[in-house]
Amino acid sequence: MGASAPKVVTVNELRNRAQFNARSCKEVKDKYGQTENGLYYLTTATGVVYQTFCDMTTAGGGWTLVASVHENNIYGKCTVGDRWTSQQGNNANWPQGEGNWANRKTFGTVEAATDDDFKNPGYYDIEAEDMSVWHVPNNTPVNHWKLAAIMRYHTVRHFLHLYGGNLYQLFHSYPVEYNVGAHLSDNGPSIPIVYDLGDKESTKNLYGPYSGGEIEGGFISFRAINHERAATAICSGVKPKSGNVEHYCIGGCGFFPEANPLQCGDFTGFAWNGYGAHIGFSASKQMLESAVLLFYR
Amino acid sequence: MGASAPKVVTVNELRNRAQFNARSCKEVKDKYGQTENGLYYLTTATGVVYQTFCDMTTAGGGWTLVASVHENNIYGKCTVGDRWTSQQGNNANWPQGEGNWANRKTFGTVEAATDDDFKNPGYYDIEAEDMSVWHVPNNTPVNHWKLAAIMRYHTVRHFLHLYGGNLYQLFHSYPVEYNVGAHLSDNGPSIPIVYDLGDKESTKNLYGPYSGGEIEGGFISFRAINHERAATAICSGVKPKSGNVEHYCIGGCGFFPEANPLQCGDFTGFAWNGYGAHIGFSASKQMLESAVLLFYR
Amino acid sequence: MGASAPKVVTVNELRNRAQFNARSCKEVKDKYGQTENGLYYLTTATGVVYQTFCDMTTAGGGWTLVASVHENNIYGKCTVGDRWTSQQGNNANWPQGEGNWANRKTFGTVEAATDDDFKNPGYYDIEAEDMSVWHVPNNTPVNHWKLAAIMRYHTVRHFLHLYGGNLYQLFHSYPVEYNVGAHLSDNGPSIPIVYDLGDKESTKNLYGPYSGGEIEGGFISFRAINHERAATAICSGVKPKSGNVEHYCIGGCGFFPEANPLQCGDFTGFAWNGYGAHIGFSASKQMLESAVLLFYR
Repeated sequence: MGASAPKVVTVNELRNRAQFNARSCKEVKDKYGQTENGLYYLTTATGVVYQTFCDMTTAGGGWTLVASVHENNIYGKCTVGDRWTSQQGNNANWPQGEGNWANRKTFGTVEAATDDDFKNPGYYDIEAEDMSVWHVPNNTPVNHWKLAAIMRYHTVRHFLHLYGGNLYQLFHSYPVEYNVGAHLSDNGPSIPIVYDLGDKESTKNLYGPYSGGEIEGGFISFRAINHERAATAICSGVKPKSGNVEHYCIGGCGFFPEANPLQCGDFTGFAWNGYGAHIGFSASKQMLESAVLLFYR
Repeated sequence: MGASAPKVVTVNELRNRAQFNARSCKEVKDKYGQTENGLYYLTTATGVVYQTFCDMTTAGGGWTLVASVHENNIYGKCTVGDRWTSQQGNNANWPQGEGNWANRKTFGTVEAATDDDFKNPGYYDIEAEDMSVWHVPNNTPVNHWKLAAIMRYHTVRHFLHLYGGNLYQLFHSYPVEYNVGAHLSDNGPSIPIVYDLGDKESTKNLYGPYSGGEIEGGFISFRAINHERAATAICSGVKPKSGNVEHYCIGGCGFFPEANPLQCGDFTGFAWNGYGAHIGFSASKQMLESAVLLFYR
Repeated sequence: MGASAPKVVTVNELRNRAQFNARSCKEVKDKYGQTENGLYYLTTATGVVYQTFCDMTTAGGGWTLVASVHENNIYGKCTVGDRWTSQQGNNANWPQGEGNWANRKTFGTVEAATDDDFKNPGYYDIEAEDMSVWHVPNNTPVNHWKLAAIMRYHTVRHFLHLYGGNLYQLFHSYPVEYNVGAHLSDNGPSIPIVYDLGDKESTKNLYGPYSGGEIEGGFISFRAINHERAATAICSGVKPKSGNVEHYCIGGCGFFPEANPLQCGDFTGFAWNGYGAHIGFSASKQMLESAVLLFYR
């Protein structure tokens, strides 16, 4: 069968999967020889059982979906649903905001990972080496994610070894907090990526034209700080060359000083010059209406 | 034993239920011969396992609880807890609001289905023919739902065949969105019902006296639009004959223009002339303080 | 093994735990001889399965974690995350607020019980005799809770027998609602405690110096009412001698009249004279930044 073609899994196969004893999709693949994309059960170190999506085909497979960042309402400025920044407004007294980049809170479900924010125990439990990222249009069903994606890429150099094995640890080293440092000089790491769908140019085109001059494609970057000392969490597909990171980096802290509260929200300042306008600093409609799915291996 | 009498199920019976492999309560009944009302495990097409309530006794049984609409605070106008309209205020920029009538988000738990909103994977996964609806007073325990209900009814003509097999599909055909059409002419379907508790007259009496002149009992209606082009989701027990649907239809879009924001919320304008006042367009206190439970078969 | 030392449990032991059929940690201990602290599966009377933490070592063990009260943002006055008071602002029209002390809603996860509010089905399902309470610094992993705690204590006199067997029942007898009575005269019970970590003096020192003169250590108290007729839920470690209970009691109703809205929130008026200032009525930073874990036995 084709690697990315949705395939019908029999009920017996599904039930059999509940018997696996694995902490990650990589282990499901290595120990149990599973090669189908789909939902599997995983078990954390403390014994928590949860269900998530395994990508078993990209670059050798074994990728565990651990989170998604979904913008429910770009007009809501740090309102309900902005779990990756703040659901309490733009608030200087709350510099870390929700804190979900570095805690054990979980939310959402795997089947709704493109309909809402998602975070499962794998986010903090799995000890991984690399990341894969998919941008998938909102409200796409699980079995169409791979075909529907507008960008897919992964890292290959085992960078997570240097940062504690997962994002939970990485963001403990690089807190996503207001006023922890200056733009560019205090940013977290930028890691080279290999594209599975798209390239450096198509990546730039997903962001606003003004952003294009301030980013370099072919990277994933962490804890990028803006001119006003607000911290974002992830710059997907790019490395910032300026401090206007709120236009091409997602998630972040609880306070964004510039034009208060316009930059506060999971997709920060992606609609700065109009919704999906793709002029000035506004990202494309495609980008604005796609969830960002984060995988570990 | 009487069909509706709560019965103690032994622990062994409960554990045995975890072995069933079924996608709906109808399948639990047909394949495994279960005839007791209560909680069962179901499995979706993609392998997600969840637990919900099966009504195994009404009109042949096999009804799966897939959702409940609960008003947590009628004074909160599209605030936290208004998952079936908007939790982001009354917002013209957010015409679909939460969008939960047509996405895969889930929330709540079966045991708290009368204490809070509830939506499980069955809502979008099950391929059904008919619906059953129970209005149950808030905070009633599961095993008393049936006896405590103030209205119960079901459809018999397999109408869901025409609309994709469930509400998820129906509301893709009839989007619950502000400004998609005009009152009456662009409403979704109204389906005749058979009462299991109550009748056309008692239905009318649950709504406000002014509403009584504008509705016909004996139906369940979908995507009814009001005078100001706001869309509601479900008119329970009735068919609208006017555009004042916000007083007898629940759930809806993210923007209700009239008297902004007074009509915004899961129970829309049910307290228009006072809380539980049952004068003018105000529904009865019974109605206001009961959750609306939605079943498929 | 040492009672409080974290111990590695093998995967086989973890998987074996899924076979237990018990409604509480006490039953897990008594029927299956389990003596390790950690996560176990429990099953409610209606067949709902959930996972929580069992303390198997304190004072004979068998304690089930059923809830935690966590302050996500003391600057948010009854905003998102204040599930134990109100997430709808300080609202006189909503006297019971969320109502979670006396309903079947559940939220959070056991692994995030110090990162967020937590409530599981055990809260209303278990028939218990005594309570144990741990104050654990925010964001502590499960296996360090016991060592990291700043206060731990339990009751010994089986007081829950008198109040229906759990907090769900107790708070039905003593509603956590605005304007149900007067301070001191209409408070719920105060129950003597035995300290497992700390004492009466250290308890007082966790609260503000002004509070110290108005409380007696060595108790846990329920439904304490303040001067303005707002009801709180639990006064941990103390018995109120005044009506300023908002400075040493947590959780509560949906409306706190004094200095509206400053006292509204899960940790009510704990930062009255500054965040973690430990002057006037302000509690210590330790207290402010610790979750309150509630156990039954």
